[in-house]
Amino acid sequence: MTTIPPCSPPTRVLMGPGPSDVPANILAAMSRPTIGHLDPEFLKIMDQIKEMTRSLLGTTNQMTMPMSGTGSAGMETVFVNLIEPGDKVLVCVNGVFGGRMVDVAERCGATVTVVPGDWGRAFTIDQIKAVANADYKIIAIVHAETSTGVLQDLTGLRELADAHGALLLVDAVTSVGGLAVEMDKYGIDALYTGTQKCLSCPPGLAPISLSDRAVAVLENRSTKVASWYLDLSMIRNYWGDQRSYHHTAPINMLYALHEALRTAVNEGLVVREARHRLNADALGAGLEAMGLTRPVPANERLPPLTVVTAPEGVNEGEIRKILLSQYNVEIGGGLGALKGKVWRIGLMGAASTRKNVNTCLSALAGALRQCDYFPPGNPIAAADAVYLSNKQ
Amino acid sequence: MTTIPPCSPPTRVLMGPGPSDVPANILAAMSRPTIGHLDPEFLKIMDQIKEMTRSLLGTTNQMTMPMSGTGSAGMETVFVNLIEPGDKVLVCVNGVFGGRMVDVAERCGATVTVVPGDWGRAFTIDQIKAVANADYKIIAIVHAETSTGVLQDLTGLRELADAHGALLLVDAVTSVGGLAVEMDKYGIDALYTGTQKCLSCPPGLAPISLSDRAVAVLENRSTKVASWYLDLSMIRNYWGDQRSYHHTAPINMLYALHEALRTAVNEGLVVREARHRLNADALGAGLEAMGLTRPVPANERLPPLTVVTAPEGVNEGEIRKILLSQYNVEIGGGLGALKGKVWRIGLMGAASTRKNVNTCLSALAGALRQCDYFPPGNPIAAADAVYLSNKQ
Repeated sequence: MTTIPPCSPPTRVLMGPGPSDVPANILAAMSRPTIGHLDPEFLKIMDQIKEMTRSLLGTTNQMTMPMSGTGSAGMETVFVNLIEPGDKVLVCVNGVFGGRMVDVAERCGATVTVVPGDWGRAFTIDQIKAVANADYKIIAIVHAETSTGVLQDLTGLRELADAHGALLLVDAVTSVGGLAVEMDKYGIDALYTGTQKCLSCPPGLAPISLSDRAVAVLENRSTKVASWYLDLSMIRNYWGDQRSYHHTAPINMLYALHEALRTAVNEGLVVREARHRLNADALGAGLEAMGLTRPVPANERLPPLTVVTAPEGVNEGEIRKILLSQYNVEIGGGLGALKGKVWRIGLMGAASTRKNVNTCLSALAGALRQCDYFPPGNPIAAADAVYLSNKQ
Repeated sequence: MTTIPPCSPPTRVLMGPGPSDVPANILAAMSRPTIGHLDPEFLKIMDQIKEMTRSLLGTTNQMTMPMSGTGSAGMETVFVNLIEPGDKVLVCVNGVFGGRMVDVAERCGATVTVVPGDWGRAFTIDQIKAVANADYKIIAIVHAETSTGVLQDLTGLRELADAHGALLLVDAVTSVGGLAVEMDKYGIDALYTGTQKCLSCPPGLAPISLSDRAVAVLENRSTKVASWYLDLSMIRNYWGDQRSYHHTAPINMLYALHEALRTAVNEGLVVREARHRLNADALGAGLEAMGLTRPVPANERLPPLTVVTAPEGVNEGEIRKILLSQYNVEIGGGLGALKGKVWRIGLMGAASTRKNVNTCLSALAGALRQCDYFPPGNPIAAADAVYLSNKQ
């Protein structure tokens, strides 16, 4: 075998749909010395992770902890633990991640009814009511649809779930840490997220939380959970008071999560959400000044992730290549039905900054000019105007 | 919420069953800047990881890559992808991890036949033949039983699997990176390992490899893989030439694995195995000088993990507490049938050193004296004798 040199990843500006840029304090936390997964000092770190996660999720749920996998493992965890074969599940689908929930739930043996939504639009409660016609084990919806940049209002879903005897399950992968999620206020029974979005932590962990009602469903299963690795009835004994070995926890990733949670909690969710909204507004103003449009209506946009339509005649993939190769800026392309049609620009966690807004706007303007699209207005001036008018 | 300080894990000497100590170059690799999971620079790193993993496993298998979870996720991956409900599986059980394979396989819908073995002993081929009486989808065995410190000779298993029309599946969590595993030579069809043992990498990834024969089984399934997260028919499109998005790979953990693989490949497996054997021999000589016995017969011992019987009248848990609190040395206790009866002492990867042998022996002697057990001989002198007589 030829000798392989150490890996030396370039320093990018990560402004895609995630992973987002990881600040130095969180990267540094990850290289602290590995200790044992049953070391008393590690158990303290675990307790703090649980406490801070509860705070960010707005919940007192006892069963709140990170799963040892990425966000999709979090999705699989909540479904595989709560569903038994034959259970009816209602899933709202207006993007890739709603679609993924259908696939995951069906693999768990659920009979799934889909509430079809428009890509790039949030659901109204009436849209869901129009389809819901039975008792369900779970009603599932995406809070922050990473494929379309849509933020879903969760108001009224608890009442709807109650009317159908269902648990309310929410995908909050691209909202937790950037927006106040308020799990208990909205009566959410099961929620999962990922570390690599608004928490500004590398990918690899999936914080989840289950309400007492969801835990009761888990405890009253008549069949074993189909996944050994994700079986919360065992994992709870490691993350709970029993501390019994299940699998070896990803120690160093958990150091990073600990530091990421600390950073978010210390900033405070109100400040943090306002920052995400302000930078998204400035980015949006800059994009508009370039003559670009955002397909999502203003009141349904997801501040951590802006979706923008690639203008007619411009090859969106070519623009992303120029951004990465010449400017070191990564933005995302479209997924699923939006493939080839949009860009997805992330301003997440520590990376939601005025500097990144300016970097992205000027790089995008430059790349567009290279592809013979000449922005009609001045994007930086438009963004500046938003910052200058901000009264916060 | 009260303010939580940054986590500051103590510097331990990790000599348990894993995680093992992670050297500075591997910790440092993990804090390199996060880049995107579809970044061309990251795709190069992935290719190098696959190439180096094949080299360590002694295989040319195309489907060789790390799963985004710990070793147990690797176990679940191979079973959930290869088994369909109703398949017959033969599992050899002589410790906790063989038992775990039974649980995992049953959750995948397999009908499992157990070959019962003695805890602390390897299987003979005749023991397995005596139970095998049907065609099986899989014959599964543990190469390095982490709960008992037994190394399984894999000779003859390929022929046995052929006689029963079975795939040969091997758990190599505690051998890969410390011992030559030689997947192709032994005709292994499916193998998984973990990063936190002899690769000296933090826990969080599970390298796996499937032979072409196993891939054909995957391709000819009549049902969907029950786990979306671990579905190799999709994940192969991300790790293969297609590079299509499945889930966001744990980027920084993969930097660490890249560096860990580099370290192992550069040392060379022959040198590395000899080092593991020499240090285990020296540790064993020191333990014997203290009057302690190893329950596993000499020719079945696992060099990276030595199991030693706690002497009559000594509380094994108390000794471990003293080692950790006074000496910062972590060793493992017994698992399952061996709980409370043995210690498990790891000398894995970068941590398999003369220094660690001496550290452990002197600390253990000190702890034993505090518990009124007075070692009859001089453990360091006994270990030294092994080093001095070593002709390598």
